[in-house]
Amino acid sequence: MSLKMFEKPLGMRDTFPVIYEKIETVRQTGRKFLRARGYDFIETPSLEYFDTVGKASAIYDASLFKLVDSQGNTLVLRPDMTTPIARVATSKLLKEKIPLRLAYFANVFRAQQTEGGRPAEFGQMGIEVIGDSTVFADAEVIITAIHLIQSFGIESFKITIGHAGVLNCILKDYTESDEQASTLRKLLVDRNYVGFEEAVETFHLPKTKSDALLQFINEATTFASIEEIEKYVRKNDALEYMQQLIELIKAADLSQYVALDFTLSSHMNYYTGMLFEVFAEGSGFELGNGGRYDGLLHHFGSEVGATGFGIRIDRLLEVLPSKETEDETVAVIFNELEYMKALQIANNLREEGKRVTLQSKNGLINEEAFTKQFGQVVYVSQEDLA
Amino acid sequence: MSLKMFEKPLGMRDTFPVIYEKIETVRQTGRKFLRARGYDFIETPSLEYFDTVGKASAIYDASLFKLVDSQGNTLVLRPDMTTPIARVATSKLLKEKIPLRLAYFANVFRAQQTEGGRPAEFGQMGIEVIGDSTVFADAEVIITAIHLIQSFGIESFKITIGHAGVLNCILKDYTESDEQASTLRKLLVDRNYVGFEEAVETFHLPKTKSDALLQFINEATTFASIEEIEKYVRKNDALEYMQQLIELIKAADLSQYVALDFTLSSHMNYYTGMLFEVFAEGSGFELGNGGRYDGLLHHFGSEVGATGFGIRIDRLLEVLPSKETEDETVAVIFNELEYMKALQIANNLREEGKRVTLQSKNGLINEEAFTKQFGQVVYVSQEDLA
Repeated sequence: MSLKMFEKPLGMRDTFPVIYEKIETVRQTGRKFLRARGYDFIETPSLEYFDTVGKASAIYDASLFKLVDSQGNTLVLRPDMTTPIARVATSKLLKEKIPLRLAYFANVFRAQQTEGGRPAEFGQMGIEVIGDSTVFADAEVIITAIHLIQSFGIESFKITIGHAGVLNCILKDYTESDEQASTLRKLLVDRNYVGFEEAVETFHLPKTKSDALLQFINEATTFASIEEIEKYVRKNDALEYMQQLIELIKAADLSQYVALDFTLSSHMNYYTGMLFEVFAEGSGFELGNGGRYDGLLHHFGSEVGATGFGIRIDRLLEVLPSKETEDETVAVIFNELEYMKALQIANNLREEGKRVTLQSKNGLINEEAFTKQFGQVVYVSQEDLA
Repeated sequence: MSLKMFEKPLGMRDTFPVIYEKIETVRQTGRKFLRARGYDFIETPSLEYFDTVGKASAIYDASLFKLVDSQGNTLVLRPDMTTPIARVATSKLLKEKIPLRLAYFANVFRAQQTEGGRPAEFGQMGIEVIGDSTVFADAEVIITAIHLIQSFGIESFKITIGHAGVLNCILKDYTESDEQASTLRKLLVDRNYVGFEEAVETFHLPKTKSDALLQFINEATTFASIEEIEKYVRKNDALEYMQQLIELIKAADLSQYVALDFTLSSHMNYYTGMLFEVFAEGSGFELGNGGRYDGLLHHFGSEVGATGFGIRIDRLLEVLPSKETEDETVAVIFNELEYMKALQIANNLREEGKRVTLQSKNGLINEEAFTKQFGQVVYVSQEDLA
């Protein structure tokens, strides 16, 4: 037996009981909440064809776990849930019922190259609204995200919203080639603002353009209203769409949870519309993200639009308000001859709603170590029989 | 776009909402039941090292999904939960608290070579009692299995119990070499009784031995009590153990659910003690199985004993009593100008406990197809505002 016996692959974790119960509470709370809003939960397989879901996924190729099946096909462990759900939604079973409102709570997989503390498998909970191209669907997704996070008892969080169309318009207007616009967009995907400013310098753009780009990058995350971006971009459909979206969120009385961030960008070109990210106070990472991804459905041969969001469960746990879980267990310990009596006592306690572990004294190797994990220990002795 | 876009790997399935909710109900019922009995749920990663968990697993190599990670290690998708739990239980975090009572609800993976309708990924729910070598632990496992199955509303089922030690003793006594005994044991693993009889013929054993073996194989699944097997095997510890086990099940008033089957055998030699299988009326396959597997813990460097069982969720669903789920959804359909009114109506209905889908009329492509899936449809019109 080597030490390796106890090791797990890079980024793989065991979930012990205390964390398991927290995740289960999140799962139940979220499921109840989303079902009440008309979302139907589905599950898709952990393995998908690379050609189908792997290539279409928004996840970088190096992060995919790949394997080859007995027929020689390359498979991937699902790296996200949006792409499998797009596959399911465009299959004939569901497409007649659009708009679809689908939800999931599932583990996704991201291969790690080094042990950097990042999980290679983690839970995600999310929704997808498929087949509704109106701004109301996007508003519903954002409003649902806000209420879902609130349902977990979290109040200090912010959703930043941008729009791929608005950003593309600005980058196109203030650069002199598609290559320049594309370079800047990639830097924003990585949130590399310093790199953005350096790239702008190297382009040797006319001063009005470079000044506008640098000013935009400084201001774009602080606009208090859509009007403020109008000095950078001519009125267009995307801006009008954002205006409507913000109005609908205001109508739901949730403005305090949202902010604008027109630098938001995705490396996947199927994100063509609004995009958003969720940040909770107390977490250095985004809790989740979402957006409109009409392009992905086109990949699966469907012309309908889609929008959705997902939350990472591991990051949600970090910001969950700590709750004292009253879940005391009673240990009923018996000698061999008192088995029936012990069964009876355990059953009675369980009927009172108590959590009961029934344990023979003979089966204990270290009685002290065993009993100290229980809130209460009941010894069943011969005398009880009297 | 090719047809393959919609395909899934061999044996992989999507779980649609109706089945998802049935599984979720099973999950919640089982979790509540097992926690009340002192079992703690844990989750282990989907991927494990082949050298650690893959080799130790009771699953044939051809059924393993294998892949190679970026470090060149061979990984497997967990083919069962018993082996990962044995790994966890022998790690230092838990081993001081033994006996451990651990539970799981997890998907396991079995590669399929042909499309034979068998799932390559399916859910399992089960428990493991680790670090208690007494017969009380085995009795607890069987009693818990019975009550768990009952908690799902299933009453017509049977648990057949055997013992690897008793079977080995009989095979040794009535054959003339370890090879012969091993050949017969393998045939029993595959339940190949015809092959068993044929093999006995080819061994050319003394008539008393071959007659005894053939008679044993005909009777071994119909013994009404332990005494009946005593004509085949001298009294030994394993028989006495089985006698005690049956007494404990009787003490819990559950004898009607159990039967003896001394042909029960596993191809894994770490199953050294009692073994059992669960069969429900209406299913051609076993619902689950379990047994004592002390040998597996030794593989992980621990000397403690372990016993447990697991139930297959897909097979459980086949025999679940059908329940009319009253889960009617109300669709609230609104025109653009009535968004706030619609929000209000949806919120009010949800506060009444109704499940409500809020949908803009503009977002509907086929209103008739969409609305017919709802129990009730509310149209929010201008007149409501009056």
